[in-house]
Amino acid sequence: MTHEFPPPSSDKAQLEESGVLSPRFDDKGLVTTVVTDARDGMLLMVAHMNAEALALTLETGIAHFWSRSRASLWKKGEASGNVLMVREMRVDCDQDALWLKVEVDGAGATCHTGRRSCFYRIVEVADGQPTLRKAGN
Amino acid sequence: MTHEFPPPSSDKAQLEESGVLSPRFDDKGLVTTVVTDARDGMLLMVAHMNAEALALTLETGIAHFWSRSRASLWKKGEASGNVLMVREMRVDCDQDALWLKVEVDGAGATCHTGRRSCFYRIVEVADGQPTLRKAGN
Repeated sequence: MTHEFPPPSSDKAQLEESGVLSPRFDDKGLVTTVVTDARDGMLLMVAHMNAEALALTLETGIAHFWSRSRASLWKKGEASGNVLMVREMRVDCDQDALWLKVEVDGAGATCHTGRRSCFYRIVEVADGQPTLRKAGN
Repeated sequence: MTHEFPPPSSDKAQLEESGVLSPRFDDKGLVTTVVTDARDGMLLMVAHMNAEALALTLETGIAHFWSRSRASLWKKGEASGNVLMVREMRVDCDQDALWLKVEVDGAGATCHTGRRSCFYRIVEVADGQPTLRKAGN
């Protein structure tokens, strides 16, 4: 598959209602990607894709990202075995965000801390100050 | 509530395991925010918060964002009535993403197109080319 996508239309209706995937990559060439569990909808992680990662994901059905910290293409789970198999991909209205519904292979831990989800802390406000509490799930 | 948050710790364990909310705002002062429906977990939208929007959200329980297109603070639903009432907020491991579980007021349309969710198109591959198909939900 080509690693090039058509440029986003300047026509808002075209961008929002057409059948053309034309991601609005940001000034770093990235698009925000939300990953949820296809089974129960749990939010697992948020990451970023460049055009190559998106093309590889579409081609293979396995989630690829761009690692901003390592500045390299990142086949999620390549080392850990927790590969993300994409069951459905969606794009949002203005095409600057993607949504992957996945099944997690391996131990089922998407977060690098070994947890199922990266979102394991709840933000609460106590005495006017935000604090974090670890969630049960 | 103060609109200032402590700077992110350079100690990874502190950032990932502590009870201190220290968002890693990007070079534009923004943190990615994922919004899901508290009732059924449907992904509704992805937006961005600056420190002021985050503080106002924590203070009022109503989702506020930073509108990148309008370059202004954005109380979501202020005009449409589709205000987002935050039932739970979470932060991810490295504190560069937030998750809001919300109840949507008004007509229940989070997307500016009038739809419930911004993610109304499924990305499919046909003959090696990605295309978009409108989803039933």
